[in-house]
Amino acid sequence: MNVQAQAGPATIPAKQLAAFVARLFVATGLSAPAAEKVANGLVDADLEGLASHGVMLADMYIERLRGNSVSKETAAAIVSERQSAVVLDAGHALGHLTGEQAMSFAIDKARQFAAGIVAVRHGFHFGAAGRYARQAADAGCVGIAMCNTRPLMPAPGGAERVVGNNPLAIAVPADGEIPIVLDMATSEAAMGKIRMAEKAKEPIPPTWAVTAQGLTTTNPTEAIAGMLLPSGGPKGFGLSFLIDLLCGLLSQGSSGAQVRPLYGDFSVPYDCSHLFVAIDVAHFCDLDWFRAQAANAAKHVRNGKRAPGVTQLFTPGEPEWQRRNRSGGQVLVEPAVVAMLQRYAENLSVRPTPFDAKTQ
Amino acid sequence: MNVQAQAGPATIPAKQLAAFVARLFVATGLSAPAAEKVANGLVDADLEGLASHGVMLADMYIERLRGNSVSKETAAAIVSERQSAVVLDAGHALGHLTGEQAMSFAIDKARQFAAGIVAVRHGFHFGAAGRYARQAADAGCVGIAMCNTRPLMPAPGGAERVVGNNPLAIAVPADGEIPIVLDMATSEAAMGKIRMAEKAKEPIPPTWAVTAQGLTTTNPTEAIAGMLLPSGGPKGFGLSFLIDLLCGLLSQGSSGAQVRPLYGDFSVPYDCSHLFVAIDVAHFCDLDWFRAQAANAAKHVRNGKRAPGVTQLFTPGEPEWQRRNRSGGQVLVEPAVVAMLQRYAENLSVRPTPFDAKTQ
Repeated sequence: MNVQAQAGPATIPAKQLAAFVARLFVATGLSAPAAEKVANGLVDADLEGLASHGVMLADMYIERLRGNSVSKETAAAIVSERQSAVVLDAGHALGHLTGEQAMSFAIDKARQFAAGIVAVRHGFHFGAAGRYARQAADAGCVGIAMCNTRPLMPAPGGAERVVGNNPLAIAVPADGEIPIVLDMATSEAAMGKIRMAEKAKEPIPPTWAVTAQGLTTTNPTEAIAGMLLPSGGPKGFGLSFLIDLLCGLLSQGSSGAQVRPLYGDFSVPYDCSHLFVAIDVAHFCDLDWFRAQAANAAKHVRNGKRAPGVTQLFTPGEPEWQRRNRSGGQVLVEPAVVAMLQRYAENLSVRPTPFDAKTQ
Repeated sequence: MNVQAQAGPATIPAKQLAAFVARLFVATGLSAPAAEKVANGLVDADLEGLASHGVMLADMYIERLRGNSVSKETAAAIVSERQSAVVLDAGHALGHLTGEQAMSFAIDKARQFAAGIVAVRHGFHFGAAGRYARQAADAGCVGIAMCNTRPLMPAPGGAERVVGNNPLAIAVPADGEIPIVLDMATSEAAMGKIRMAEKAKEPIPPTWAVTAQGLTTTNPTEAIAGMLLPSGGPKGFGLSFLIDLLCGLLSQGSSGAQVRPLYGDFSVPYDCSHLFVAIDVAHFCDLDWFRAQAANAAKHVRNGKRAPGVTQLFTPGEPEWQRRNRSGGQVLVEPAVVAMLQRYAENLSVRPTPFDAKTQ
């Protein structure tokens, strides 16, 4: 039976999808609690419309667990702990696990010292950085999370990849349901948007990418063969370069080209570095007052005057929250991802799958 | 004698210019050490090619000192101090003074706790944010400085100014002469660049600004009557919004429209808020190792492959360093600024001026 040929898109309850993906990870050798945590992280990203951080990553995670470039350990080890400064060695464990652990550590330090700063070496992909910033905000702290990736972008004027599109997330505690969380990559556009333009045979803005020679292009095909550009030129480049140094040097881990391709050789560790910062609001002011003020400021943005044709204004993190709200707890899984998950279910003898009744 | 009609551009030794501007501030009632510090800060910005943060600000500073919206105090008062969290009240003193004080405080806290976080309320313009980030880097710390400004930019899709072009600076310790310091405003372009396009009768990119109605424009005149756009759309907007909340709420000072126009009523305090963070590198790793690694990473960027026609690649902060180097310690003062400084010299009876022999 050719599972792939048969697969169509499927809409699956998030809980069911997460439980299924967790079973795939358990079948690969991960402990059940760890598998559940990682699967929930992936499905959460799907619910927020961040498919690139969702269950489509499951095959890469599984292949790396099999190839031993991702460890089956579930926690990072403490390398050093000096006042509010902590260095962890994740030992190439899944970033969802060590990320939550590291931010918990930062929050504990913040309770004691006002701020906690946790640098993590030998890290692996941790999904959406905003997840950890929000973890801190939920605990009454300003949360900041960042990581480096392998070089993807040139310096302004460069013709060689020297920095990743290293993400930065910042969240603050706020009243109400809508979290205030910025989660940005430092590239002007995501590669996915360039691929969409190529499919639609549409030109891209000249600020998105350059050719492999570093020349300006509006041709998406040339851009895909070329390099992403930093957001705002020297601004995004500078941010990305500083994030790389902060993550890689404070952790004494990898930076620059020492971080390996995520989709390269699955037996070679990805080896990125992370940095987590928590700042305890209560050390500065009344937390309830802060939360109310932050929510008011957000409301002011949302209620602002709109340009003609614009129906809604968003605060940072609100689009993700709205997509999760609209999802009704259901995840639309793309056909290629359904096929991939079915393939692994068969291969790992994980039956039944949530797709069994849906895709025929 | 009409001084203004007579004034031409002048090239003045930095030390002489700073001493002269300091005398203007002293004549306005500031203490000599404070006046020298502020004047040096302004002249430093001129040497780095950041004229908008240079001595051209002197008249606004003087008028605000006269109007009592800037205080003649030279230090901020401690509001609270809890572990590494400090809140200062600058009482509308000159930001150059309270900025240096606040970052010194943050560095002291970082030595003790690994990180120091100092929020400042009732602040005034502190010049280039990178100055304070570098102060921390020179002391072996990661330095982060930010502040809010009055609202200047709409949310993406908005037709109303809701956030400032709030700057963010980050510096790290590094070997060698060239500092590694990112100092960025969160707008896509500076208003000065739009004014230059208007003068040259050239269109601007559609990402720089919108009309007063929030509509896309490439017309610089419409842009000047309109609003600056955030760098990278939701990215720059999100950064700016978070910077506003971090500065304004942790200090329990002003945020959003509570910050007043810098060039508005000179009897009304500007009332911005600042945030300074220092992270002591030695709490994480050997400082010498960090400095060497950071310098190596910078060298790698500078030596990278260049796109055709590009003669040089820069690390964050390097263009400013190069301009200072090329200046030979001489500041080119624009005619309008010469005239303004001559006018205040006459008015405050500060003689002789460095321009006396130069502009005839």
